[in-house]
Amino acid sequence: MRTWATGKRPHRHRALGAALLLLAASAAAAGTSAPAAAGGEAAGAARNVILLIGDGMGDSEITLARNYTVGAGGRLHLDRFPMTGSYTTYAVDKDGRPDYVTDSAASATGWATGHKTVNGRISKTPDTDRPLPTLLELARNNGLSTGSVTTAELTDATPAALVAHVADRSCQGPADMRDCPGDTRERGGAGSIAEQSVAHDVDVLLGGGRQRFDQTVTEGPDRGRTVTELALRRGHRIVTDARELAAARPGRPVLGLFAPETLPLEWTGAPAVQGGTAPQRCVTAGPGRSAGTPDLETMTRQALRLLERPGRAGKGFFLQVEGASIDKTDHDADPCGQIGETVAFDRAVRAARDYAAGHPGTLVVATADHGHSSQIVPLAARPAGLSSTLITDEGGLMKVGYGTHAGEEGQEHSGVQVRIAAQGPLARRVLGVTDQTELFTTIRTALALR
Amino acid sequence: MRTWATGKRPHRHRALGAALLLLAASAAAAGTSAPAAAGGEAAGAARNVILLIGDGMGDSEITLARNYTVGAGGRLHLDRFPMTGSYTTYAVDKDGRPDYVTDSAASATGWATGHKTVNGRISKTPDTDRPLPTLLELARNNGLSTGSVTTAELTDATPAALVAHVADRSCQGPADMRDCPGDTRERGGAGSIAEQSVAHDVDVLLGGGRQRFDQTVTEGPDRGRTVTELALRRGHRIVTDARELAAARPGRPVLGLFAPETLPLEWTGAPAVQGGTAPQRCVTAGPGRSAGTPDLETMTRQALRLLERPGRAGKGFFLQVEGASIDKTDHDADPCGQIGETVAFDRAVRAARDYAAGHPGTLVVATADHGHSSQIVPLAARPAGLSSTLITDEGGLMKVGYGTHAGEEGQEHSGVQVRIAAQGPLARRVLGVTDQTELFTTIRTALALR
Repeated sequence: MRTWATGKRPHRHRALGAALLLLAASAAAAGTSAPAAAGGEAAGAARNVILLIGDGMGDSEITLARNYTVGAGGRLHLDRFPMTGSYTTYAVDKDGRPDYVTDSAASATGWATGHKTVNGRISKTPDTDRPLPTLLELARNNGLSTGSVTTAELTDATPAALVAHVADRSCQGPADMRDCPGDTRERGGAGSIAEQSVAHDVDVLLGGGRQRFDQTVTEGPDRGRTVTELALRRGHRIVTDARELAAARPGRPVLGLFAPETLPLEWTGAPAVQGGTAPQRCVTAGPGRSAGTPDLETMTRQALRLLERPGRAGKGFFLQVEGASIDKTDHDADPCGQIGETVAFDRAVRAARDYAAGHPGTLVVATADHGHSSQIVPLAARPAGLSSTLITDEGGLMKVGYGTHAGEEGQEHSGVQVRIAAQGPLARRVLGVTDQTELFTTIRTALALR
Repeated sequence: MRTWATGKRPHRHRALGAALLLLAASAAAAGTSAPAAAGGEAAGAARNVILLIGDGMGDSEITLARNYTVGAGGRLHLDRFPMTGSYTTYAVDKDGRPDYVTDSAASATGWATGHKTVNGRISKTPDTDRPLPTLLELARNNGLSTGSVTTAELTDATPAALVAHVADRSCQGPADMRDCPGDTRERGGAGSIAEQSVAHDVDVLLGGGRQRFDQTVTEGPDRGRTVTELALRRGHRIVTDARELAAARPGRPVLGLFAPETLPLEWTGAPAVQGGTAPQRCVTAGPGRSAGTPDLETMTRQALRLLERPGRAGKGFFLQVEGASIDKTDHDADPCGQIGETVAFDRAVRAARDYAAGHPGTLVVATADHGHSSQIVPLAARPAGLSSTLITDEGGLMKVGYGTHAGEEGQEHSGVQVRIAAQGPLARRVLGVTDQTELFTTIRTALALR
């Protein structure tokens, strides 16, 4: 049933897909649940999958960005997916009991491996610390091209969960292994997240975190070399700005490292404060950014260009795209930063949808990994925590409160269910209420990964 | 195209419905938006509509109730709808500019009339204070039976918006007209919400607020009579407890007034406090409740029984069901009260789905009117505002924070988009991102109301 794998029988697939959708839609109209009708019969319906993760992009963060930029009655690209649902994101403790607020590591492990784990862990089991196979690994093993794009360090939790297995998310580079004794090369482990990322020979890895890759391996056969040097020895092309990225050609892995740490923010503004800020407009040019820093949309379009060439067996690709700093700016109670990052993510969604418009066998999924702190409150409210009032593009006043943690030491995630939206083959599987571990199954099924 | 109106050609309708759904599903699969395919061709596809509004029941409130009762991996009845989307709820100011956080009056005016209005106003225009026709009025004028059920006073904002037009939601009874000078009988207006409710001869009105109906009309031809007396003179049957409600028969309007004010809460517990409560279990028997107080599920099932008899022209019905005190307990930072009310609402959803299972021409929609304050935060968080830790039924610890307003004087709504879910004819119209005013059009179209 891998009709798309050969790229030869799209029409037959379409007819089958339509029939299945009719089945699902009829079930839906009758009030029964659709998922049962999904079954395994549509396996391989997709040639490509583009998965976009807005880190910390709960419904509140989406509404904030919409209100500020296109207006309360306007629509983001994010809003235009035909299939939509809610998605639960909880983590577990080591005994498998629920932990109602996930971090990005446990969350990414959920969608990347189909298994719940404990907060902080990267694609390993909650109890026995065993590695769990990831979507990217399965895709690569099945002959698909693979890619991962982020505005964070490439070793940060979300991209890490696709290409690494470590006991703790902090083990990003060879010098950061303190909390992962069992993962060190010395102990026979696979090493840091940076080392494991390189060892996976991912076709396209684009993001920040150059400092992690510039660390020197201190153990094992590669001792004395930096991770960057290991990548070069494996034939990777390393690019460090937008021009080099545009010049990269498919054929060997492209490792884009565009900042020492997280990529600079798109927008800036006054952070929220106790008692509220004066009404402010956001500054939409981040001072830390240069012409050489590719934005998330550019990275996404370039990744698609590099992945478009059929994979090793003439197959499609799996690409993950993370808007990472929605989360980071929400932690910082920085509403302008947060909206700027959400808007940048939304442009990456546009890039994905543009690609899918020309390639109908592409499943596109956009979701978040967890909810976050920011809330839109009435202008008359006096929030208990930090707040700021923004003057939106449509001329409204919007008050944003951050109250999940007292003081200015950093806001917290929330445990709210988040939105998931999709288009393309198997998109209907996001309808209703699903758990993020089910997204793993949806993507695995769509690509018929074995 | 009113095939269901005669109740004679369900099979033909079903085939048509399936074909239309195929069209929509195919469009969705191809990545295009479904709404365009909806058009007017499915007008009249539904015989009945049951609209369930969880007041203040944002995604956070749903997640809280799920985690506490059926567990993070469990599913509420609310979660089982096949078609799901997000829904924007903002209000406007008198010049039509956005007000990013709605109250229940403007929100209910949105879905009940298809028009945005200012906060506090009940089914009147934002600027010129003109009455806007409501779904219930249209349904009644088109020969359908009508009903409205709430755990609040029947004169509270949500039920009011279906049967009344006043400048301010506070104008609930004849003695409450201070903020509605233009609506008084003396000035030629339609009087208070209670008076207008009775004048509509709604087939079934069930809820609280007896005190409003016991107020005496002081102006106009009915001067000297209570609103209750007016109802009796119009032939309404008045019931005041569950037994009387069960004994009521269709044929004349049933007005159920089961409490002087809001119906007593289902659950109780310690309210959230600054610094957090000790871990607590909720008390699932509300001390204010007696055997004579019908719960929301009972009211819903009884309303359906009374409405089931075909309307004046052999037509179906429009029923609204509100879980009102989710909002009120969220304002009070009372997590147990809030979860108990959400669970009661969820059982009303079950009643609606049970009915629809036996009556396939029934469109069931469940949504909220706005988001609210409560957030699930990590156990290690120190929320800026009030908080409480709950011990869930599955044995987890869940920390709930309320930070939209400082101190204990009352939490605020949030402006977040909320969930909308549906099953039955035209249910697919809730997919994607819609505004609550579009729900008016969906229901109007489904019932072919002219």
